[in-house]
Amino acid sequence: MAERLIVIGGDAAGMAAASQARRRRGRDDLEIVAFERGHFTSYSACGIPYWISGLVNDREQLVARDPATHRKQFDIDVRLRHEVVGIDLDRREVTAVDLDGGGEVREPFDTLMYATGAVPIMPDWARTEAGGVYGVQTLDDGSALREWLEADPQPRRAVVVGGGYIGVEMAEALVLRGLAVTLVERGEQPMSTVDPDMARLVTEAMRGLGVDIRTGVAVTGLTERDGRVTGVLTDGGPIPADVVVLGLGVRPNTELADAAGLPLGPTGGIRVDRRMRVTGVPGVWAAGDCVETLHRVSGMPVHVPLGTHANKQGRIAGINIGGGYATFAGVIGTAVTKVCDLEVGRTGLREREARDAGFEFVSVIAESTSRAGYYPGSRPMTVKLIAERPSGRLLGAQIVGWSEAAKRIDTLAVALWNKMTVDDMTALDLGYAPPYAPVWDPVLVAARKAVDALAR
Amino acid sequence: MAERLIVIGGDAAGMAAASQARRRRGRDDLEIVAFERGHFTSYSACGIPYWISGLVNDREQLVARDPATHRKQFDIDVRLRHEVVGIDLDRREVTAVDLDGGGEVREPFDTLMYATGAVPIMPDWARTEAGGVYGVQTLDDGSALREWLEADPQPRRAVVVGGGYIGVEMAEALVLRGLAVTLVERGEQPMSTVDPDMARLVTEAMRGLGVDIRTGVAVTGLTERDGRVTGVLTDGGPIPADVVVLGLGVRPNTELADAAGLPLGPTGGIRVDRRMRVTGVPGVWAAGDCVETLHRVSGMPVHVPLGTHANKQGRIAGINIGGGYATFAGVIGTAVTKVCDLEVGRTGLREREARDAGFEFVSVIAESTSRAGYYPGSRPMTVKLIAERPSGRLLGAQIVGWSEAAKRIDTLAVALWNKMTVDDMTALDLGYAPPYAPVWDPVLVAARKAVDALAR
Repeated sequence: MAERLIVIGGDAAGMAAASQARRRRGRDDLEIVAFERGHFTSYSACGIPYWISGLVNDREQLVARDPATHRKQFDIDVRLRHEVVGIDLDRREVTAVDLDGGGEVREPFDTLMYATGAVPIMPDWARTEAGGVYGVQTLDDGSALREWLEADPQPRRAVVVGGGYIGVEMAEALVLRGLAVTLVERGEQPMSTVDPDMARLVTEAMRGLGVDIRTGVAVTGLTERDGRVTGVLTDGGPIPADVVVLGLGVRPNTELADAAGLPLGPTGGIRVDRRMRVTGVPGVWAAGDCVETLHRVSGMPVHVPLGTHANKQGRIAGINIGGGYATFAGVIGTAVTKVCDLEVGRTGLREREARDAGFEFVSVIAESTSRAGYYPGSRPMTVKLIAERPSGRLLGAQIVGWSEAAKRIDTLAVALWNKMTVDDMTALDLGYAPPYAPVWDPVLVAARKAVDALAR
Repeated sequence: MAERLIVIGGDAAGMAAASQARRRRGRDDLEIVAFERGHFTSYSACGIPYWISGLVNDREQLVARDPATHRKQFDIDVRLRHEVVGIDLDRREVTAVDLDGGGEVREPFDTLMYATGAVPIMPDWARTEAGGVYGVQTLDDGSALREWLEADPQPRRAVVVGGGYIGVEMAEALVLRGLAVTLVERGEQPMSTVDPDMARLVTEAMRGLGVDIRTGVAVTGLTERDGRVTGVLTDGGPIPADVVVLGLGVRPNTELADAAGLPLGPTGGIRVDRRMRVTGVPGVWAAGDCVETLHRVSGMPVHVPLGTHANKQGRIAGINIGGGYATFAGVIGTAVTKVCDLEVGRTGLREREARDAGFEFVSVIAESTSRAGYYPGSRPMTVKLIAERPSGRLLGAQIVGWSEAAKRIDTLAVALWNKMTVDDMTALDLGYAPPYAPVWDPVLVAARKAVDALAR
């Protein structure tokens, strides 16, 4: 008789695991059932802001692989709108509720793949029955928001609470839709994933786009009328709004895991080993936004909810479930984003993280250009490097620029991954031609500057 | 009394060396004299095609640092239009001719910096007194060509001989100026710096631009009338032309070095050690397009004339001349170019080079896109990887794509520099966001494909 794999969560991590397991084990060997509480499988949550803005027209474009494909091509029994509400590790079964029909089913498993993703951080003040308040984590969330934006009366004023990636991207999306947007950020600046000196450029760009940015302001409540949100209350006064978007970050979705006794780590994510096995729980695997992972620079566990990690981890879990061998090597905190035409990239540790991890370091900022200065379209590019003192080992890097900037962080990410020193980096043989770089690439300019700083 | 440094050649390598030496040694300690046979110092030869095309308007924009700056800011006695015609190592002096005045001077040196660059390869058939035939190596060459293009009668038909970087870039430049351009390439395809399967895309792009590409055709002579070129003769028949541009590559400019007894290596370039000292000749240094250098992958000496290496090597020579310590780490063959909107990047060894170096390898080609498929402006991108068998070590990589493609080669260049295997590369934490990459970055897709190929 075939063994049975149950997958909880039908997005990137879960379905990558399921399809990889299937590639290695046929249906006679492994039966696969996947429960997904939403309407979609394997979609790009990162694409939601662009669908909200209208840059992407069709919601279906965000779906990489629909349930029908999973069923037909991979022989996976995908059950949409089924929410798993209980895991019994002793009896090896899960309980799921049909969110449309209302019925409850119990399904046994031999192997369990836990991939429930993350949930938006929702402060008490945000819990309301009133319409117009949205987290943006799932495609269903995005659909609800878009419906609200298109319904009568059409919202004209938006407040985005929180200036992380999602907050910043959603602010831009709402501006592009024609709304007047206020972004409220409790900290000193939006985009705290880079250091304040780099984030400043993001703030300027967003202001240039017309976003009203209020920093150092905390939201304390909502105002409502007739079942609709009418604004937010803050410690700096009320701000009217027809729609409120929460961009306060996400946390691992682990309620179910916790109840079942799966181990959670200090970040709140599920603890897994290198093969994506839940630590100490035989036959149970986890991957994606619900787990914590190793930061290769700090050596500490981190929670980094990002589609690219979810896909990699899911694939690795699936290879192992399928009888192969693969390990997840950890992350170094690489991330890129686009704010209007401004491109932002980071990798490794930012200053505060480096300090928290106990490193001594120097940091330098180098101004350069995307292309040879004389070549048309050459734009400013700022590269920041953080290097351990005295070793010179690269600990972190950030890039902000106006064109062809963000993905250059990959060059620095690979250098950092390989534990290069900034001195070694000055020797790197990087591509040079006037349409692409000055004769001293911005990365090399920054590395030289870091070497000088270390020598002082 | 101050020591005396004589620099032969006032472009990137020579002047980088001079200014670095000056930073470390004041004028009372080191007198610096630089001879340059042309009219310019420290200019971007790589920018010449863009000045010819008109993309760059002003020749002066290509000059990074003019003689006046070198004189005032760095106290360097720059003598333009002075060609060094002899080096006497025993008497420690050089002989230079004033190309305008005609006089000859002898100048003693304690230290000599040889940085004469490269000269275009000029077959016998190209040696002519007739006007309209140009190599494009120096800014003076570029000026002569541009004058010819602007003079009466204005040339309408161009033949570019040779399809390397300069040939391809010049063909595009001449098309942009409105000329009818024929590119004659003796080999199978232009752009032989990448493998034929990748070069095919370049050929297609150039044909799309309207360039008449004749491959497998060798030029055998010129036709002339009234002191002007009227066409080229080939083994496939004559081709009329009002201007002929030579893009047959360059060779190290070493006549003077050879006559003085400086050692030349198998590539024809001057042999230098890691500090850019001419091997076995005390007090004499060399850098830039006139030297040969170590290829870090093949372990063989190579001649790679490129401004970025010339600048790095010149800087290193200068640091050492100045009493510091620095070494040049060698190259890995990274290069990028732009052909119309097509972007081409390469690093490491291409297939033929890998074979010649004695490697066993697999190669894979992966098709992907520059951005998430659903994000506007997503364009095809082709990544080729060459990996040693069975170790999996990356030996070479090539990228061709329509936007944001070329500089991604840097990611692969840093991976290759660090001797990563393709298996290790599948774990890399690269930047992901829909405007910049699919959730599986093209580099990761290619690495996975290479891992599969190695397992077969």
